[in-house]
Amino acid sequence: MTETAPFKKVVIIGIGLIGSSLALALRSRGLAKQIIGVDQAAATCTEAVGLGVVSEATRDLVKAVEAADLIIISTPVGAMFDILGILREAAPPDAIIMDVGSVKGAISALGDAQHLLVPAHPVAGTEGSGPGAGFDTLFENRWCILTPLAREDAPYHEAVNKVKELWEALGSSVTIMDARHHDVALAVTSHLPHLIAFTLVRAAEDMENVHEAELVKYSAGGFRDFTRIAASDPTMWRDVFLHNKDAVLEVLARFSEELAIMQRAIRWGDGQTLFEAFDKARGVRKAIIEAGQETDKTNFGRDKRPPE
Amino acid sequence: MTETAPFKKVVIIGIGLIGSSLALALRSRGLAKQIIGVDQAAATCTEAVGLGVVSEATRDLVKAVEAADLIIISTPVGAMFDILGILREAAPPDAIIMDVGSVKGAISALGDAQHLLVPAHPVAGTEGSGPGAGFDTLFENRWCILTPLAREDAPYHEAVNKVKELWEALGSSVTIMDARHHDVALAVTSHLPHLIAFTLVRAAEDMENVHEAELVKYSAGGFRDFTRIAASDPTMWRDVFLHNKDAVLEVLARFSEELAIMQRAIRWGDGQTLFEAFDKARGVRKAIIEAGQETDKTNFGRDKRPPE
Repeated sequence: MTETAPFKKVVIIGIGLIGSSLALALRSRGLAKQIIGVDQAAATCTEAVGLGVVSEATRDLVKAVEAADLIIISTPVGAMFDILGILREAAPPDAIIMDVGSVKGAISALGDAQHLLVPAHPVAGTEGSGPGAGFDTLFENRWCILTPLAREDAPYHEAVNKVKELWEALGSSVTIMDARHHDVALAVTSHLPHLIAFTLVRAAEDMENVHEAELVKYSAGGFRDFTRIAASDPTMWRDVFLHNKDAVLEVLARFSEELAIMQRAIRWGDGQTLFEAFDKARGVRKAIIEAGQETDKTNFGRDKRPPE
Repeated sequence: MTETAPFKKVVIIGIGLIGSSLALALRSRGLAKQIIGVDQAAATCTEAVGLGVVSEATRDLVKAVEAADLIIISTPVGAMFDILGILREAAPPDAIIMDVGSVKGAISALGDAQHLLVPAHPVAGTEGSGPGAGFDTLFENRWCILTPLAREDAPYHEAVNKVKELWEALGSSVTIMDARHHDVALAVTSHLPHLIAFTLVRAAEDMENVHEAELVKYSAGGFRDFTRIAASDPTMWRDVFLHNKDAVLEVLARFSEELAIMQRAIRWGDGQTLFEAFDKARGVRKAIIEAGQETDKTNFGRDKRPPE
């Protein structure tokens, strides 16, 4: 924490996986002189301080944001609207407010001209949740998407630039896009995969002729990969689906169409349709690995294998 | 390769991920005096010998199985029926024939009384394919399911026992079950997850307003996990769906029902239904990790994280 830290007082509202990772990353890189955590759960505040994630945590949002120059909202999306309502009165007028939620259209639509609201979405995470799940390299080599409001004034431009530099300092690549496009793109790459994983695990558990012990034993056949995503925080994901309804329903309809084609091919023994679909699906993984967004290790490197 | 190896001459038909892993595992544990690889592709034979997977490989199935005491069929399921037809004439009458396919009902239904056919399914694998994908610890700490034929004769019982001991020697736990139940249980834990992963990747690639570059960049949001499974061998999986049609269509119908419930909850903003479904889906992962079928490392351990 140097005298030249770009932010003097950073307040992080919601000390979960993302909030705690931000606190740790900001501190380890000297980007903030002071960091205060805010959480509505007293137990989470105590835990975050106990773990050394933040040196100070409180339930008192209004008091915490006094004289803050950066206010980060890292709660589930559904809680952000009330918090923004409180901040409208409580936050210093020149403070930058940044939410880091997985849905951007609903926040951008608020378009509060009174504050420097910069919506951001770091596309990074794990299946963990809570202050103990955070780690300070979470954002390295990941993309962060900014969806700035339609404002032309100089202070706002400057705020967007400061936020951009902040994410770059955390190791992320930053891209700027329209909030609506963000919500469709992330519905495909993140929201639908989570919905499908939750649904598949639920459907498997509801098979009355296959016991949970069998799901566990034979999970190495593919099921276990889905359980990782389905272990994610249910409140966060509930809010994503409630606030990105249109885009999720659109990509879900596309998925269901494709699934109907596969179902029909299986029913009629149409091996050629199956083969062509499966063969075409292989290519994108190579691109993801080459872009550094995925490990190139077989089975995610989780299986025992002698060194090559 | 000791004099006391339980098998004198093992022939492995189909030198892909499973066949090559079996060759390497049998050799490193001294379970066979001689191992011959058979593949219809001359290039695969050359590659397998070049990689040291087998010391000898040939396209000549009939000649290879002369005097064999264990014949392993590790081809895609669709190719097994012709091979079994050839083996009916060519294999020594007292040879054990073991297929290792992911579908068991169709093979068990053949019920050839002339040979000691023991259907087996090692529930292990990776997204890799071909002789270079094999490794000799693939079956360690995994389950192998045997679905023996309805035969009461002593030689057959002895053959099943020898096969059981073989898998145990490779580090697997062995369970015996009815072929029809196998096909339903694996439809849930393996076939449906693969179908869903292939379908999701295809649907994502077909979104005309989301470019492949975006799929790649933002894949860390969940999509990348699906691409791993969708990188699996398309021929193998085509055959699985063609030969396990009834069970796959049954579990697919259950999945679609569950998905319709989720879709409706999203459309109507029913957060409670979503939360309860997501919350319930979290539990099974813990059981899978405790059973040693999955890594307990966050994000499969693939992300940078300081040691704890």
